[in-house]
Amino acid sequence: MRRRRIYEGKGKVLFEGPEPGTVVQYFKDDATAFNNKKTGTITGKGVLNNRISEFIMSRLNDIGVPTHFMRRLNMREQLVREVEILPIEVVVRNVAAGSFAKRFGLEEGGRLPRSIIEYYYKSDELDDPLITEEHITAMGWAATQDLDEVMQMSLRVNDFLQGLFIGCGLTLVDFKLEFGRLWEDEEMRLVLADEISPDSCRLWDVESGERMDKDRFRRDMGGVEEAYQEVARRLGVLPEAGPLDLKGPKTVQ
Amino acid sequence: MRRRRIYEGKGKVLFEGPEPGTVVQYFKDDATAFNNKKTGTITGKGVLNNRISEFIMSRLNDIGVPTHFMRRLNMREQLVREVEILPIEVVVRNVAAGSFAKRFGLEEGGRLPRSIIEYYYKSDELDDPLITEEHITAMGWAATQDLDEVMQMSLRVNDFLQGLFIGCGLTLVDFKLEFGRLWEDEEMRLVLADEISPDSCRLWDVESGERMDKDRFRRDMGGVEEAYQEVARRLGVLPEAGPLDLKGPKTVQ
Ligand SMILES: Nc1ncnc2c1ncn2[C@@H]1O[C@H](COP(=O)(O)OP(=O)(O)OP(=O)(O)O)[C@@H](O)[C@H]1O
Ligand SMILES: Nc1ncnc2c1ncn2[C@@H]1O[C@H](COP(=O)(O)OP(=O)(O)OP(=O)(O)O)[C@@H](O)[C@H]1O
Ligand SMILES: [Mg+2]
Ligand SMILES: [Mg+2]
Repeated sequence: MRRRRIYEGKGKVLFEGPEPGTVVQYFKDDATAFNNKKTGTITGKGVLNNRISEFIMSRLNDIGVPTHFMRRLNMREQLVREVEILPIEVVVRNVAAGSFAKRFGLEEGGRLPRSIIEYYYKSDELDDPLITEEHITAMGWAATQDLDEVMQMSLRVNDFLQGLFIGCGLTLVDFKLEFGRLWEDEEMRLVLADEISPDSCRLWDVESGERMDKDRFRRDMGGVEEAYQEVARRLGVLPEAGPLDLKGPKTVQ
Repeated sequence: MRRRRIYEGKGKVLFEGPEPGTVVQYFKDDATAFNNKKTGTITGKGVLNNRISEFIMSRLNDIGVPTHFMRRLNMREQLVREVEILPIEVVVRNVAAGSFAKRFGLEEGGRLPRSIIEYYYKSDELDDPLITEEHITAMGWAATQDLDEVMQMSLRVNDFLQGLFIGCGLTLVDFKLEFGRLWEDEEMRLVLADEISPDSCRLWDVESGERMDKDRFRRDMGGVEEAYQEVARRLGVLPEAGPLDLKGPKTVQ
């Protein structure tokens, strides 16, 4: 049976789900950075991110942070609730790195005075510019109450993830979240959507300081596949068959 | 008597004032744009900005918005209270233009859904990056209460200036403010500082849409001196002697 393809993004394909109000996220091995200026493949990434995101979203559901996640379907696919994605990327930062370090002329690696939440406007065309609460509410991208809820949820996710990763010997430097709206009994609810994986988090090994995330790809550091596998291994979600199977089905149906 | 020069900026020189806690702002004809990448001279600008800023700051004092302004001393100088400038440029926008239009892929000239307040970090080295309330409070550049006060004052200034300029046939597109701290009886107070002039405001003629501000210099449009004079004339503060005298004393003592 052929499914309708709803959207093909840089890291995932969205298909129509089996029931109304659901979609299937298919995780690809494609990697991009710097807004598509750099492209490549990280073998097995899709399989690993599917597992990692499944694990984290499920644990967040457990502690009462609502997410879109329903269940994993196979090696590369998961079923999620269809949402209307807010056109905002929420970035939570604990340690200076990346564009933040550059913007403020800081060295990477310094812990911030406190965790900082940033918003970026989701627009590849405009290079995902940094935006403020003023921009968001004035332009109608989200209401003040929605944004407050998004911020509260993001802080909870940060607390949880910092704990989870520190337990695995990883420092959660920063990460990106996306939120979406869904309607239940005529009521609008905001839930965490998209994915949480080494594609969307900076994770540094506590001992060695080594980067265990997409920065290895961005900066051509090598050992990219191994880093994703190590994160999955430490979280206890590495598929049992091991590395060889990570290529998964070659074709996206 | 030689005065101590405290600071030389791109548009003004600050000298020690006659009494403690005061400084003299000397307004130069120097013009810069794009963070010093473009430099030049606008003849008479210093004389006009001194008058325009005197007039606006005085009227703001009248309506109860506290400012640093004390009195004009001569053609190019005014006496102001010395403050500790917050390292923040506050930008208020009513109509899309400049970097805002670029950031959001908008055409210049569209009225915004509502007035938008932005903060930029005062750092020439870093090119005055856009910052959020999160950045400001987390990095300790201002406390939440100070920022609330800054925002309230900025909105009042915007209301007042929009009225003032529309009365002169000018649309106030956007403008930049700086605020400073001063101590009075052991109490900290925030006041409006720096200047308000066609250097720091975008002003478009209501009828023709013509730019009557520093954009004429930024974009090599010609008629720069004339635009500054026209703004001063409409505000009723053009020095009586007329254009010829605008060059003022050639040397900064
Ligand atoms: N539950 C959901 N319902 C609907 N859309 C979703 C859901 N979860 C994630 N999405 C969206 O699906 C797409 C996932 O694809 P991918 O991450 O590859 O996109 P992308 O290339 O990063 O592009 P984008 O800039 O749109 O995020 C994203 O646009 C994401 O916002
Ligand atoms: N009342 C005041 N007390 C102390 N400093 C002031 C006061 N008003 C303005 N200033 C500061 O004096 C300087 C004015 O000079 P000018 O406007 O030429 O600076 P600039 O080249 O724009 O550089 P900057 O990036 O510092 O604003 C600015 O740094 C401004 O913040
Ligand atoms: Mg994405
Ligand atoms: Mg200045």
